[in-house]
Amino acid sequence: MAEQESAESIRPKMQVMLAVSHSIKGYPKPSVSSRNALDWILTKLLRPCCKKEYKILIFHVQIPDEDGYEDMDSIYTTVNDIRSHHKTEKQKGLALLEYFVKRCNEAEVDCEAWLSKGDPKLVICKEAKERQPDLLVLGSRGLGTLQRMFVGGSSSYCAKNAPCPVVIIRRDPSETPSDPLDD
Amino acid sequence: MAEQESAESIRPKMQVMLAVSHSIKGYPKPSVSSRNALDWILTKLLRPCCKKEYKILIFHVQIPDEDGYEDMDSIYTTVNDIRSHHKTEKQKGLALLEYFVKRCNEAEVDCEAWLSKGDPKLVICKEAKERQPDLLVLGSRGLGTLQRMFVGGSSSYCAKNAPCPVVIIRRDPSETPSDPLDD
Repeated sequence: MAEQESAESIRPKMQVMLAVSHSIKGYPKPSVSSRNALDWILTKLLRPCCKKEYKILIFHVQIPDEDGYEDMDSIYTTVNDIRSHHKTEKQKGLALLEYFVKRCNEAEVDCEAWLSKGDPKLVICKEAKERQPDLLVLGSRGLGTLQRMFVGGSSSYCAKNAPCPVVIIRRDPSETPSDPLDD
Repeated sequence: MAEQESAESIRPKMQVMLAVSHSIKGYPKPSVSSRNALDWILTKLLRPCCKKEYKILIFHVQIPDEDGYEDMDSIYTTVNDIRSHHKTEKQKGLALLEYFVKRCNEAEVDCEAWLSKGDPKLVICKEAKERQPDLLVLGSRGLGTLQRMFVGGSSSYCAKNAPCPVVIIRRDPSETPSDPLDD
């Protein structure tokens, strides 16, 4: 019995992966669905008595410029202009991650955060394949009409294609912000 | 800080709901996908250091006679015949639940188990609505060609319609039993 307990106590941390997005208003405001997903992790999944047994892997997928709207009118005349633009994009992404890392720090839960680039649904599945988390958590706006938007569309794809268990934290329709831009 | 810790320590148990099915071979053998789902709960989700903080709600939905194959040739001549058939069906269901309850007992995790009747996907969503678990766990055979079967078909429906977060434990194709009846 003592042996069994000892074997159990060295079980590796539960790795919980969370893909986060910014609100429709843009960086650095996190989307309501991503905040909901972190809330669920911190208040439901994690047990306060063994916080040390979890690690939250947080990442944000930035969509390459050709799919974006910001900076569409920018004219780049030098390589430095382009480099500076990339740096700005990265800084915006980092500012978004900051919100999530700060909340994990406040909750005293181990975390790791990074930025990726590409088609969100494909990158999320690729990251899950590489990191093999015990659980992938995705927020979803839970609205059929908005399912084309970042998280909604990605979450159903990932639920079917990610190589690990996926939990989608759907938002209750009553939680829809009165100003859609707050989403 | 002490107050905060105290508030955290009285957080209610995490209620994890698990819908289980029997193997294609029939009662009382549990399906591979249901066993996988319980394995994930016991080895990944539950942290050994705070087992007391979880409660597993296990139920099995029995499909009413008109959809079954067993007892198709039975002829009921008395009310007692029918009652006896119902009793048998119930006993078979209970024998299936026994496997899951036994494993929870062995793992020293609080659980509760019951039988329901009806269309599995609708009943699963109804039970989730009534019990409001923190997480609904469903096993899935993970095979497109078998998705019409009990769990596969139900799991995607429940992921979209259950009023709580749903995690689907898909089986790796390599885990497919060589004898399909062992499924």
